[in-house]
Amino acid sequence: MEHHEKWMRLALQLARSAEGQTSPNPLVGAVVVKDGRLIGMGAHLRAGTPHAEVHALDMAGPEAHGSTLYVTLEPCNHYGRTPPCTEKVITSGVKTVVIGSKDPDPRVAGSGIRRLQEAGVEVVLGVLEAECLRLNEAYFHHRRTGRPFVTLKTASTLDGKIATHTGHSRWVTGEAARAEVHRLRHIHDAIMVGVGTVLADKPRLTTRLPRGGHNPIRVVIDSRLRLPSDTPVTDVTEAPTWVFCTDERDPDKEEQLRAKGVKIVSTGPGPRVDLHRVMRVLGEHGVLSILVEGGGTLNAALLRERLVDKVIAFVAPKLLGGQNSPTSVEGEERETMAEAIHLRDLEVQRFGEDLCVIGYPVFPS
Amino acid sequence: MEHHEKWMRLALQLARSAEGQTSPNPLVGAVVVKDGRLIGMGAHLRAGTPHAEVHALDMAGPEAHGSTLYVTLEPCNHYGRTPPCTEKVITSGVKTVVIGSKDPDPRVAGSGIRRLQEAGVEVVLGVLEAECLRLNEAYFHHRRTGRPFVTLKTASTLDGKIATHTGHSRWVTGEAARAEVHRLRHIHDAIMVGVGTVLADKPRLTTRLPRGGHNPIRVVIDSRLRLPSDTPVTDVTEAPTWVFCTDERDPDKEEQLRAKGVKIVSTGPGPRVDLHRVMRVLGEHGVLSILVEGGGTLNAALLRERLVDKVIAFVAPKLLGGQNSPTSVEGEERETMAEAIHLRDLEVQRFGEDLCVIGYPVFPS
Repeated sequence: MEHHEKWMRLALQLARSAEGQTSPNPLVGAVVVKDGRLIGMGAHLRAGTPHAEVHALDMAGPEAHGSTLYVTLEPCNHYGRTPPCTEKVITSGVKTVVIGSKDPDPRVAGSGIRRLQEAGVEVVLGVLEAECLRLNEAYFHHRRTGRPFVTLKTASTLDGKIATHTGHSRWVTGEAARAEVHRLRHIHDAIMVGVGTVLADKPRLTTRLPRGGHNPIRVVIDSRLRLPSDTPVTDVTEAPTWVFCTDERDPDKEEQLRAKGVKIVSTGPGPRVDLHRVMRVLGEHGVLSILVEGGGTLNAALLRERLVDKVIAFVAPKLLGGQNSPTSVEGEERETMAEAIHLRDLEVQRFGEDLCVIGYPVFPS
Repeated sequence: MEHHEKWMRLALQLARSAEGQTSPNPLVGAVVVKDGRLIGMGAHLRAGTPHAEVHALDMAGPEAHGSTLYVTLEPCNHYGRTPPCTEKVITSGVKTVVIGSKDPDPRVAGSGIRRLQEAGVEVVLGVLEAECLRLNEAYFHHRRTGRPFVTLKTASTLDGKIATHTGHSRWVTGEAARAEVHRLRHIHDAIMVGVGTVLADKPRLTTRLPRGGHNPIRVVIDSRLRLPSDTPVTDVTEAPTWVFCTDERDPDKEEQLRAKGVKIVSTGPGPRVDLHRVMRVLGEHGVLSILVEGGGTLNAALLRERLVDKVIAFVAPKLLGGQNSPTSVEGEERETMAEAIHLRDLEVQRFGEDLCVIGYPVFPS
């Protein structure tokens, strides 16, 4: 099993190397091993192009006969934009397939495993399963719920402040943490902010990694369309911008924004934007993952509606103070400390001097 | 040098084992080694009893002749409540003394080293110096400045909240972190809170470790003497209580509190307690170290006056939210993020699920 884990770890690494490139498809990595020697490897690189197994088996060539294939996700068993991987595995003469996690896609969902077993291929399931599931947590969540996987990202001082009372927030965290945020943007399909953040910071909300990166769809929550038509996020040449508002929106502003190519969606009567509706609409449009970089009000609203699936909290080793300095979660009051939202499966990373606390929210019952 | 570090590390460990017992003396550990074999060890256990070197050399006995003595702090060279350690080292025939850090006490300050060298003992200085200095950071600070070493302890959620808007705060952190706070109380000479914390939580502010522990002096900052005379901290049978107020204090309350054995000190006209004066008074009375467990207002005031020497921030992996929930540092506003107080020499520990961020404040110039 330890031996299996070594190769699965490599397959995971290969899969991750294509982060931000494969949506709406999952990240998948594959490795072919024979007599303890690596003879093929591959990753799924982009929707519509060959799957990881195909690349890896092509590299192995005729040597694949009698080999072991490691793949992070159950091989597909249906004709999509590419032929089923199961057939490729079988005709290559692979002896054993070691699989990280099952595919929850109803078109696969165990049928890939069954097809392999029927053809006499030995199947080992669940090696590094937790890592393989986490690798595609957004994909799996979307397949299961139809909603995007929502990651709340915050950046605050040790005393919870995200800005001074004047709204000044450049910078809370250091360069390494800010670079990580750009990596996070790169691997998300959409980025979400409240209009307050746009008004305060005039952000571009694009991915600025050393070599560019994928720009997510920019989603602005703005019940009455206070968004100025000349702020950077309305420039849709860099990335699409969607604004979710209510029927209380300003019709003139709507016209101006539409003329600039901004997509406007009303979620109904208001006064607040219906966040559940927002998630449904985005999910239907193939948005698998959202990175929320909103202020304390949007963050609180999403948490109240239990629409947060993951939290990534950057904490700078600083104390700002100030009774009126905004914090990372504002909104309604809770009466007792027991009502706080806990994070489970905690992971703590360091980026330069800053901490990054990652976890999954457990909402009090 | 690596070889020296191994033994110095043991000496440090021995020194730490007497944490909370030696004030106003420093923590000191000593180890005697001959031909690569440990032949003696000791620690200073309580003021007025033998120093670490004496215990270690006594254990070594006649074998000490030609040995190497490792000691975390420069041996003393003066008659205090015990005879000078330098003489004991010389008469024992120790060949080499390896010292962690010099003693800043003007009665020692290098004279111990000189005395040893004059007597033909080889001296190696500065092995694990940073650790040895940190071991007695409060002692050294008090010797240098006459003021106590002030450690600000906070316990907040990831979004910086220390309580709900109703003041409910039990509990922010888990059991392991709370046990660590009791260990911190044990190793401090005094514990400081604002009267607001006493009114809200009615704390006892005693050390409740599994086997008891040393109770620090309880210091309450209370400009007008709002402290109720029947709250747990006014019971001085557990530990002394000092209240610092201003001339605007309520004279009847003063009488009541004095009758219970509470010490009352006015720092002058007010309206605020003069925190610099508080520190001078406590320093003069032999208080080397203070653990501040105040609310956001006291924390902000101490930071504003630059009277914080160390920060220990417990962060629970929780989000509480709430616009009116108090945060760990409140007080006056800063205009820009650049005015935040950074922490240097950062250390991050885990206590159960909670994080503990430790650092030394760097005040913006």
